[in-house]
Amino acid sequence: MNTKSKGSSAERELIHMFWKNDWAAFRAAGSGSTRYPCPDIIAGNSLRKLALEIKYIDNCRKYFPKKEIDELREFSHIFGCEAWVGVKFQGKGWHFFSVEDLKETPAGFGIGLKDSELRGFSFSNLLSL
Amino acid sequence: MNTKSKGSSAERELIHMFWKNDWAAFRAAGSGSTRYPCPDIIAGNSLRKLALEIKYIDNCRKYFPKKEIDELREFSHIFGCEAWVGVKFQGKGWHFFSVEDLKETPAGFGIGLKDSELRGFSFSNLLSL
Repeated sequence: MNTKSKGSSAERELIHMFWKNDWAAFRAAGSGSTRYPCPDIIAGNSLRKLALEIKYIDNCRKYFPKKEIDELREFSHIFGCEAWVGVKFQGKGWHFFSVEDLKETPAGFGIGLKDSELRGFSFSNLLSL
Repeated sequence: MNTKSKGSSAERELIHMFWKNDWAAFRAAGSGSTRYPCPDIIAGNSLRKLALEIKYIDNCRKYFPKKEIDELREFSHIFGCEAWVGVKFQGKGWHFFSVEDLKETPAGFGIGLKDSELRGFSFSNLLSL
């Protein structure tokens, strides 16, 4: 699988994880192709709604472009939900960051494996907030 | 345009209408193609979230199959949102029905133009509930 396929596969995996935990989750169509801000995945239950940008990382670090994070913030403000990013490192589990906790660099909002293991939320922590 | 294209075009029109009124709205990817229930459109603001099944009607009546309405109910229960259907009649405006107000028939949940004009919610009424 190429990186794009692995990214899509990671998104599907995450959607299954939400449903298994009695949350509804789905990909938002038009992410990247509509004129409106649109996250990769929306998940929710009766208490909380989350908008998530997702990255599959096959080496040690990846950047969320500033535009992507700005749009995630804008969407979440209008839709009325929490704004998160989710990263899956190749061969490892998932880590989640609230957009408030992302560190901006000139290259964008960078997330590395060490940072994620230290500061990221696990999936179960994300659900139990 | 064939009926399917007109249906997609109607969905896009409705999405624009939500954004113009300061609601976020988007098509849910995988509607009809995932193992999980998934509505056509999700819309929301900080106060309310709606899941909608959409039909474009080029004659006087159309039916939402029972399975589609059951899945809309199931999705909305888990995601924690209101469940609505939206219909656009060729050359006319939009009408909306809460799933609670749909009448079941042996052919499914039928919606006709006269019923819609009498009992359906307009778009502005839907937003101002």
